[in-house]
Amino acid sequence: MAEQKIALVVGLGLIGGSVAMALRGFEDYRVIGADRDAHTLHFAAEHHVCDEVTEHVESVLGRADVVIFAMNPKGIADQLKACRDAFKPGAVVTDVGGIKGAIMEAAQCLPDTVDFIGCHPMAGKETSGIENAEKTLFENAHFIITPGKNSQQEHIDLLWRMGQHMGFRDIVITTPEEHDAIIAYTSQLMHIIAVATCDDEDLFRCKGFEGGSFRGCTRVAALDVPLWAELFSMNAPALCRCIRELEEHLHAYREVLEAGDMPRLVEKLEYSAARKRKMNLE
Amino acid sequence: MAEQKIALVVGLGLIGGSVAMALRGFEDYRVIGADRDAHTLHFAAEHHVCDEVTEHVESVLGRADVVIFAMNPKGIADQLKACRDAFKPGAVVTDVGGIKGAIMEAAQCLPDTVDFIGCHPMAGKETSGIENAEKTLFENAHFIITPGKNSQQEHIDLLWRMGQHMGFRDIVITTPEEHDAIIAYTSQLMHIIAVATCDDEDLFRCKGFEGGSFRGCTRVAALDVPLWAELFSMNAPALCRCIRELEEHLHAYREVLEAGDMPRLVEKLEYSAARKRKMNLE
Repeated sequence: MAEQKIALVVGLGLIGGSVAMALRGFEDYRVIGADRDAHTLHFAAEHHVCDEVTEHVESVLGRADVVIFAMNPKGIADQLKACRDAFKPGAVVTDVGGIKGAIMEAAQCLPDTVDFIGCHPMAGKETSGIENAEKTLFENAHFIITPGKNSQQEHIDLLWRMGQHMGFRDIVITTPEEHDAIIAYTSQLMHIIAVATCDDEDLFRCKGFEGGSFRGCTRVAALDVPLWAELFSMNAPALCRCIRELEEHLHAYREVLEAGDMPRLVEKLEYSAARKRKMNLE
Repeated sequence: MAEQKIALVVGLGLIGGSVAMALRGFEDYRVIGADRDAHTLHFAAEHHVCDEVTEHVESVLGRADVVIFAMNPKGIADQLKACRDAFKPGAVVTDVGGIKGAIMEAAQCLPDTVDFIGCHPMAGKETSGIENAEKTLFENAHFIITPGKNSQQEHIDLLWRMGQHMGFRDIVITTPEEHDAIIAYTSQLMHIIAVATCDDEDLFRCKGFEGGSFRGCTRVAALDVPLWAELFSMNAPALCRCIRELEEHLHAYREVLEAGDMPRLVEKLEYSAARKRKMNLE
C-alpha cells in the first residue's frame, strides 16, 4: 500500500479552517493543520477540522506533499521566507491570499525543488477565527489559481482537483497581474464602498429605514482591519484607479440629477442596468 | 352580521400583488385588486392573489374602506387626482411609493372626508410584475407610515395592524420629510452606487472573479428604470447631498492609499468598521 500523502494547512483561521474541513477526504491525502494558538488547535482537534493538528509546522513541513499557507498576506510572505529550506523536495506550495503579485514575488525566495502556485478562494465572512470556519464556505465561490512561470502542469491539475473537492462553483487560472487588476475592482473596491458608505454622518439615524440594498452594499464594512489594510496597500495603484473611476461615475450621475435632466437620467440608468443584466450573475 | 369591509389594491405589479397576497385574511376585510392589464388580472385571479379582481377601479372605489395605490409615484399622484371625488366618505387612502413628500403633496387634492396616510413597504426585487409577487416579500422588511397632519389615530392604528398582518419585521412612523431625507441615503444612494459601479469599464472582464461583496453591492443595478428615474428625480436635492458625501469619503480613502499612509489607513478602517458594527444589522 502506498504511503498516505500529506496536505499541510498552516494557519487555522476562518479560511484555513474552512480549507482544512473542505479538503478532508481528498484522494489519498491526510490533512494536517498547524497553528501557533493553543485555543485554535484545541478547537480544531475537538471539531475534527483536520485529520491531525500540530503546533509545530517544522515537524511536518519536511513530509508534506502540499503546503497551504492561510494567514494574512504579510504573514504568508514571512512564512515562505522562514520555511524556504524546510520543504520536502517536489512539494507543491500554495496560499489563500487575496493578493497574488506580492505573494508570488515573495515566493521567489523558494528553492527550485518546490513549485509555488498561488491560490485565491474567493470566499469570506464578516467574522474571523476557526469558530466561524465552515466546510461549505466555498460552495458558491470562485477558486482562482495563479501558477508560477515554471509551475508543472501536474501540480496545477492537483490544485484544480483540490478546488473541485472543496466544492467551489468554478475554477479560473490566470496570471497574478490579471488577478490583482481585476480583484481591485470586484473585491477591494466593494470593501472601500462599504466602509466609505458607513462614514456618512446619517448612518445611525437610518436604522429602521434600511432595505436589502443597504444591507447588501454595507455587509462587508465590519471588516478584518489588519487583513484588509494589507490587501489594500499591497494593491494600491490598481485600487486607486478603481476608486477614481467610481468617483467619476458617481459624479456623472450627480450632475444629471442636479441639472434635472430626466431624459439623460433615464438614458444613463438604461445603460447601467443593461450592463448589469448582461453580466447575468445569479 | 356586519358587512364585510373592503381593502382595494390599485395596481397589481410586484408590490401591489405582494401586498394583496399578504393582506388576505386581514380581520374582516375583503381584498379586491384592480389593474388595467388583462394578463395581470387573469394571473391574479388564477393564482388567488386577492379575493376578487376587477378591471374597473371606479366600480369599487365608492365602497372601499381602505384604498392602496401601488403604482409608480407619478402614477399614484395622477390616480389620486383622477379619483378624488369617488372615494367613500371616511375611507383611508394610502400608497406604497418609495418617496413620500411629493405623494403627500399630491394627496392635498383629496377632500376632507378621506384620510390619506403614506406608506412605504421597504421591500423589492430586481424583477417586476405580478408573476414575481410573493406573499412573504415583506418578512424581513421595515414598514414606514407617514401620517398626514390631520390623520386620525384609529386610521394610523389600522395601517399598523395591516403592516403586522403582512408580516413586516417592524413598523416605523415618521414624517414625509424625515422619510425622504433618510431614504435618499439608505435606499436611493445604494441604487446609484450599484449602477455607477456597473459603469466601470472593467465590468465584463470581471466575470469569474466576483465574490459576495460584488454581488451584494451590485444586486440592485438591474433596476426598473422608469420607477427609479422618478424616485431619484423627486428627491434629487437630498440624493445629490448623499452622492457628494460619498464622493468625499471615497476620495479620502483614495488619498490615504495614494500617500501610502498605512497607520492612517488602519485608523480610517477601524473607524468605519466600528460604525458598521455599532449599526448591528443582522
